[in-house]
Amino acid sequence: MSQPKKTDIAELGEFRLIERVAETTANKQSSTIKGIGDDASVIHYHETETVIANKLLLEGIHFDLIYTPLKHLGYKSVVAAISNIYAMNATPRQLILSIGLSKRFFVEDVDELHVGIKAACEHYAVDLAGFDTTPSMTGLTISITAIGEAPKEKIVYRSGGQKTDLLCLTGNLGAAYMGLQLLEREKRVFNGNSQVQPKLDGYDYILQRYLKPEARKDIIDNMAQSNIVPTAMIDISNGLASDTLHLCKQSNCGVRIYLERLPISSETFKMADEICIDPVTATLNGGDDYELLFTVPVSMYETIRKELQNVDIIGHLCDVSEGNYLVTPDNQAVELTAQGWQ
Amino acid sequence: MSQPKKTDIAELGEFRLIERVAETTANKQSSTIKGIGDDASVIHYHETETVIANKLLLEGIHFDLIYTPLKHLGYKSVVAAISNIYAMNATPRQLILSIGLSKRFFVEDVDELHVGIKAACEHYAVDLAGFDTTPSMTGLTISITAIGEAPKEKIVYRSGGQKTDLLCLTGNLGAAYMGLQLLEREKRVFNGNSQVQPKLDGYDYILQRYLKPEARKDIIDNMAQSNIVPTAMIDISNGLASDTLHLCKQSNCGVRIYLERLPISSETFKMADEICIDPVTATLNGGDDYELLFTVPVSMYETIRKELQNVDIIGHLCDVSEGNYLVTPDNQAVELTAQGWQ
Repeated sequence: MSQPKKTDIAELGEFRLIERVAETTANKQSSTIKGIGDDASVIHYHETETVIANKLLLEGIHFDLIYTPLKHLGYKSVVAAISNIYAMNATPRQLILSIGLSKRFFVEDVDELHVGIKAACEHYAVDLAGFDTTPSMTGLTISITAIGEAPKEKIVYRSGGQKTDLLCLTGNLGAAYMGLQLLEREKRVFNGNSQVQPKLDGYDYILQRYLKPEARKDIIDNMAQSNIVPTAMIDISNGLASDTLHLCKQSNCGVRIYLERLPISSETFKMADEICIDPVTATLNGGDDYELLFTVPVSMYETIRKELQNVDIIGHLCDVSEGNYLVTPDNQAVELTAQGWQ
Repeated sequence: MSQPKKTDIAELGEFRLIERVAETTANKQSSTIKGIGDDASVIHYHETETVIANKLLLEGIHFDLIYTPLKHLGYKSVVAAISNIYAMNATPRQLILSIGLSKRFFVEDVDELHVGIKAACEHYAVDLAGFDTTPSMTGLTISITAIGEAPKEKIVYRSGGQKTDLLCLTGNLGAAYMGLQLLEREKRVFNGNSQVQPKLDGYDYILQRYLKPEARKDIIDNMAQSNIVPTAMIDISNGLASDTLHLCKQSNCGVRIYLERLPISSETFKMADEICIDPVTATLNGGDDYELLFTVPVSMYETIRKELQNVDIIGHLCDVSEGNYLVTPDNQAVELTAQGWQ
């Protein structure tokens, strides 16, 4: 099967490449004063605080283009960046994107990436307010800065947790990690024999969790409607263990997480069983989940249960002297430890 | 000579690495509400517009660590990012830094980079308000987001140039490019024979322009003092030709630049002569200069000459139908063309 001819970036020129993206970007946020195409982007919020986070996604570390379509990668990059804005209880409004492209990449590849970015921008109502490209020696580099706003009194830091607070978690964990394991397995099989087609049928949920995750805008919206402001919050992108420890350290608290309360989907259990991985390990250290972990006063127990769907109370904070433990159903306490630098 | 032992990043841990930087970072801007260490940084400006730009610097493309000390690279990264904020006639206040590190890099290397970043932050009065690290497969990746503010009426876009405006340029051009040529030459000699010491004495100015450039805060400050607001402005990071064309395109104007008006230092001429490169080519296409190109109404000719030091009037805008030309002393017109994607 012949591939359609692709266009060299040098042929089009960097400036035209940026213009192409600008031309197909329709900014909708009233706070976007100046978008793509100047030395900087200009934003104006009224009375609110500005919340900014940058996410750097590197080929070979954060994604493998063998099994990650560029469209999905674009979408996921936006999700990864804005998840940090939601984790402050803020509303993302703008993105600034810079990409490094090696000679392997063509104009059509940038278009594909942009299709995914655009879809995510529409879904989450954010503007692509800045775009720049640079040559790269080594594959694809994506730097994405998310900018949002929140009233001062609504911003939630990692540091506000109190020692009797409930620990709450959105969605479920470990599925994205299982999706990644599946893709890696099929890649190995495929590399061994290119005649074999990858077996991905029936694994839709875990694949979707890895390839096309969503940020928890829904929960942030629900909390706003129900006037719930967490005491502390963090997004789970490095795994529950590591991110819980960050929250506890900054709140100067210890923690108890109850193993039987951990939300794990049946698809995660099924895949874990198939490849002989402990599903709890995937849940604690898996990463790529983009769920939110937050704390609320214990008095809000009933409110959380009634008002928030897709939220589980998985444990509670405690005095810092009591340490950080995972408690098993037979009441054994296993110390929580963070995953290291890989 | 034995090297002091360096510390593996895995040994220290990513979290501690970030903490180390946070601990030695003293935020001074009142607009920095929350700096390093949460999901996002929080900033509050009063009544002004927020101006944001991201710069992606990749090893092998933007810098060569063979001859670029990490300290200088840190300083230069800040300059490259905030130069875009000055080019909007705004004041930079915060930086958000993300770095990708391959296994070649140690904790001490991050410290070195941070020393340079910190020096630049102090010099330009900006806060390092966010810092994150990630593993990398391929060398050092630096993503630096600069955030600043300006009153709405002071912001200068690329698009405001009028067809009789004067074209003004800060500083001089081509010296950074000559510094790079010198370093590349000495690297080749050194690679051929490691007993030969590089000859860098007597080239201080061009080396400094390449290795430790400064952003034109001074000119932006002077313009504010003299109530000068340019009609259009851009920073010269890709070379005068390319950036002039950007300004002209967005202002829907043509341009005349007069060759004899181009500011070129004697050191640039000397090096150009030594390595048989046309100094005008270096000036037009050299890049890495971080000077500002701006336009003002022709009525401001005397004001610019009197009030602004280190600024040359190098030409003027004209009707878009008249095209974009460089005019030589013997009145020949050479069409300005942009450098391509390299």
